[in-house]
Amino acid sequence: MTDIESLKGFYDRYPEEFAAWREVIDVVETTAAEFGFREIDTPAVERRELYEIKSGEELMDQTYSFEDKGGRAVTLTPEQTPTRARLVQQRKDLKTPIKWYDTSKRWRYENVQKGRDREFFQTDIDVFGIESVEADAEVIAVAATIYERLGVADRVEFLINDRTLLESILSAYGIDNTEAVMGVIDDKEKLSDAEFRTELLGVGVSSDIVDNVVETTSVRGPIREEVERMAAIAPDDEDAQAAVDRMADLADALESYGVADACKLDLSIVRGLAYYTGLVFEAFDSEGELRALFGGGRYDDLVGLFGSQDVPAVGFAFGYSTTRELLKKEGEWPSEALSTDVYVAAVSDDVREAALGFASELREAGLVVETGLAGRGLGGQFGYADSINAETVLIVGQRDLENDEVTVRDMASGDEEQVPVEDVVGELV
Amino acid sequence: MTDIESLKGFYDRYPEEFAAWREVIDVVETTAAEFGFREIDTPAVERRELYEIKSGEELMDQTYSFEDKGGRAVTLTPEQTPTRARLVQQRKDLKTPIKWYDTSKRWRYENVQKGRDREFFQTDIDVFGIESVEADAEVIAVAATIYERLGVADRVEFLINDRTLLESILSAYGIDNTEAVMGVIDDKEKLSDAEFRTELLGVGVSSDIVDNVVETTSVRGPIREEVERMAAIAPDDEDAQAAVDRMADLADALESYGVADACKLDLSIVRGLAYYTGLVFEAFDSEGELRALFGGGRYDDLVGLFGSQDVPAVGFAFGYSTTRELLKKEGEWPSEALSTDVYVAAVSDDVREAALGFASELREAGLVVETGLAGRGLGGQFGYADSINAETVLIVGQRDLENDEVTVRDMASGDEEQVPVEDVVGELV
Repeated sequence: MTDIESLKGFYDRYPEEFAAWREVIDVVETTAAEFGFREIDTPAVERRELYEIKSGEELMDQTYSFEDKGGRAVTLTPEQTPTRARLVQQRKDLKTPIKWYDTSKRWRYENVQKGRDREFFQTDIDVFGIESVEADAEVIAVAATIYERLGVADRVEFLINDRTLLESILSAYGIDNTEAVMGVIDDKEKLSDAEFRTELLGVGVSSDIVDNVVETTSVRGPIREEVERMAAIAPDDEDAQAAVDRMADLADALESYGVADACKLDLSIVRGLAYYTGLVFEAFDSEGELRALFGGGRYDDLVGLFGSQDVPAVGFAFGYSTTRELLKKEGEWPSEALSTDVYVAAVSDDVREAALGFASELREAGLVVETGLAGRGLGGQFGYADSINAETVLIVGQRDLENDEVTVRDMASGDEEQVPVEDVVGELV
Repeated sequence: MTDIESLKGFYDRYPEEFAAWREVIDVVETTAAEFGFREIDTPAVERRELYEIKSGEELMDQTYSFEDKGGRAVTLTPEQTPTRARLVQQRKDLKTPIKWYDTSKRWRYENVQKGRDREFFQTDIDVFGIESVEADAEVIAVAATIYERLGVADRVEFLINDRTLLESILSAYGIDNTEAVMGVIDDKEKLSDAEFRTELLGVGVSSDIVDNVVETTSVRGPIREEVERMAAIAPDDEDAQAAVDRMADLADALESYGVADACKLDLSIVRGLAYYTGLVFEAFDSEGELRALFGGGRYDDLVGLFGSQDVPAVGFAFGYSTTRELLKKEGEWPSEALSTDVYVAAVSDDVREAALGFASELREAGLVVETGLAGRGLGGQFGYADSINAETVLIVGQRDLENDEVTVRDMASGDEEQVPVEDVVGELV
């Protein structure tokens, strides 16, 4: 006897639990598919150098990297974006917009804690090749529609920013080291008001405009309203007005998609400095109890690092961990229970064959059907039917069959009725 | 610019190709689900020792094994059976039959050739905890139903054997080193008749019964007929008669499942000596052009190696590689093309918002809908709609809208009709 456990941070999902996972993954994928995103499938293992192009040392340290038997340095994929960039670069013939989704596992060697596993599912959803606000709005619309369909639209808000808007407003304030200031703004959430001000002063923001920066990055409201305020800050700054116009166009597009109400402009959303070039957004629990659900944005400079084409891109990686917490809190995590349409019970061995026949017919009609494999008595069969939450038990007995009938038992009510053999499928489908 | 390729034996599947894969995987999974198999999800990485319990050195040599950052010897899963055995052992409370399916990737560092990739999909389908022939028949029925639904039932036959039947008949012939003889029979396919005879003599089969062994292992026919012949070989041997009876019961069960015609008894099917304890089967291209599609069987002694419970098991791992070849040969591999229900085209920018609104409504109704993200003219939009195989294009124009109408174009026929705005969803769903 041996007792080998799974690795820390890796999970075994038995059918009851995974039925719920599958239901949520299906909502995410179906939504993406209905928006015209197409499923791709990519390797779980890549050459290590693929990740070195864009990832910092920290991320590389968290990868599962090793040498394969051919001496190649390889890495279990910690994120799909580099792979997608590779795929886009490989095919110059792809028509734009290139709209892809995929749900697969990622691996990161992190300290295991709540919401941080070493193996986890992620659904990547991106539009490549299009720079328009419509593309920006579409990825936010996909995300918002997912939460609508998961039943928690009222608990989720999307905080939206545009890096070019923030940058141009900082410039309009006379700040020239905008990069450093945005770095401080990126940390704002973790800082007290006093600390935030100190840090701003520390990177050289003059004391007379610290208030302006604090105020600008404290805004969180409907995009249309807030964007008008932004327009008024720098009425004569061309860059700022262009960014303001783009944000106003985004607000229009979000409205057309019917998801504007879930979105708020928040100029403190930065999402690091390395990656995003325009739109950035994060989905939050509107009651503020949970960490960010996930985030995304526009990254027009990234794909070009992986080949000869410059290809704009906007998208997000949907992680399931915090969303699962939210759904559980709200009672919207799907029931972790098996579901079965019909259990076919054989009263005795001599009708086993007939029972299997009914099971086959019902499956042909698309039902989930189990039948006795164990030669158990009727009591044992009912116990098993119960354990798999069979809605109906079809009881096949010799005497019934002689009358061309079977008994159909509704498991919820306990009601039984005799049904002519030829009506069984029609009755149960 | 960099040009990093995917690893040899690992594949990038773009949407067109993966749409076909997904369709085939869906058939396999839906069939398993309708038979009451439940989806599980298990780690892609396990402790190396999990695989050392059952795998020979050869298989271990073909694994992707390495040390993780915590110094643990780990392996990318080359097969799911050890993991499943671990899961069964971990939960003493599971009701039997335990019926599981799962499609996920496996990794083996093999020499890449046709049909042998280093990363590949596999769907594992097993029944744990039940020893009956009904369980044996059910897994074969699932496999046969999959090929029926894939449209190639007439090109696939299941060659079926029972290790205990073969062994008891060899014993009845007076052979006592049955293990060694079965080893030779396992190689029969690769040997000429003369070589086979020589090998049999080589492991000590006496010359007067070599003919018997050759004859017995050359049988390939309907189970019922052949099993009667087998019964006559050793009428007084209890073990042989028990094995014959079990095979006859299996034939009955296969008949009840409606899949008996696809099955043939073939006593030369052994599938190695390490693993299977009873039923063994292989799915073959009935025209003999392709390698085996996949195989499976009963392995009652395996799960017990992984913990304190002895748990009988029967099942198979469905690989896609040869099946894909077969489907392509038969013209049944699904079309590698995108499919889109509706493309919503905006005639001008001022109706873009209305176009997005129609797209949202149609998606709510469950359709796959794309709409312009790029601010293209109508010609460009039609070109794109064509490239995604849109069935219908909804043309939204200012003048139409003023009359509360839109234009619906059937892309196959080119026919266009005006449709009142309020009827659009009803018309297109």
